[in-house]
Amino acid sequence: MRSPDPLRNGVDNNRSPSAPRFHSTVAEHKLRRFNSLILVFRLTSFSFSLASSIFMLTTSRTSDSPHWHHYDTFRFVVAANAIVAVYSLFEMCASVWEISRGATLFPEVLQVWFDFGHDQVFAYLLLSASAAGTAMARTLKDMDTCTVSNSFCVQTDIAISLGYAAFLFLGFTSLLSGFRLVCFIINGSRFHL
Amino acid sequence: MRSPDPLRNGVDNNRSPSAPRFHSTVAEHKLRRFNSLILVFRLTSFSFSLASSIFMLTTSRTSDSPHWHHYDTFRFVVAANAIVAVYSLFEMCASVWEISRGATLFPEVLQVWFDFGHDQVFAYLLLSASAAGTAMARTLKDMDTCTVSNSFCVQTDIAISLGYAAFLFLGFTSLLSGFRLVCFIINGSRFHL
Repeated sequence: MRSPDPLRNGVDNNRSPSAPRFHSTVAEHKLRRFNSLILVFRLTSFSFSLASSIFMLTTSRTSDSPHWHHYDTFRFVVAANAIVAVYSLFEMCASVWEISRGATLFPEVLQVWFDFGHDQVFAYLLLSASAAGTAMARTLKDMDTCTVSNSFCVQTDIAISLGYAAFLFLGFTSLLSGFRLVCFIINGSRFHL
Repeated sequence: MRSPDPLRNGVDNNRSPSAPRFHSTVAEHKLRRFNSLILVFRLTSFSFSLASSIFMLTTSRTSDSPHWHHYDTFRFVVAANAIVAVYSLFEMCASVWEISRGATLFPEVLQVWFDFGHDQVFAYLLLSASAAGTAMARTLKDMDTCTVSNSFCVQTDIAISLGYAAFLFLGFTSLLSGFRLVCFIINGSRFHL
């Protein structure tokens, strides 16, 4: 492992006077662009997962329609999407902090491991919730629940689709945070320049 | 991006005479150990996914018991596990080739992208199949299918659990192949030394 980069944890005012200014400017610019991309993905993931939770929570408006909380699987879908929405909101704040101040919220080593670990786990959680939700929704269609209350089924389908969309963007984010992590392991800095 | 490592695609007989011998020996040794770890994970993943497919295929031995192929979700479980078993077998051959000859089966750039891309996609595929299978198995328990034919339900539960185990090891492999890919992107070589 090489010695830590001067950009480590954003302490760019401690930069060695021998380091070329041009190289650092390029690195800072690229790091900012990379973090902005992560922020956009997190915002999209947050929006989709929040929308999915809200859609599922508002499926049962009349007393005679089925209730989402009567089905374990739909409870899992709501919980997974809510967890991802809260996590994405927190990570968006951390991203904004990093972009504006040039330093990570936690110490850099903790931040890169925290981001990648949680992105991976929550991406898998969201996918499994959506897949289980899909299986349940298909079963309900075979069981005449959907002929009795079609709007319930349509709304659960939309909620599950929004969950898949949130997973997709969380998966992309997980690839980017994985890249940052490996850069940190190899170079001692979260950016590869 | 730095210039390609002498170990690139195993062409170690082209090593520059100026490169220190000690460094190359350590790199070769570490690369071999890393590849052996990937091979062990792939073997485990192969065994679990094959066992899962076989368990699910042999659930319906009597004509009066339910058949796995009557349920879309269980067909998905069988297909996903069979795909992962075939893929793991192919990747095990590629790993053995790489360990024994010191060169990747495909050109290095193709190999690292192929491995990581397929590991990621198949890990997500297997998880979604297992999660959907779990939701279906829970529904069957509520629908009295399991009181009529308990052995069918027990056997599907075992098949799904084996699928989760295969996913776990495929997930680990995906982390390792991701590490190799980022090393390749940064250093121009699949190993970071």
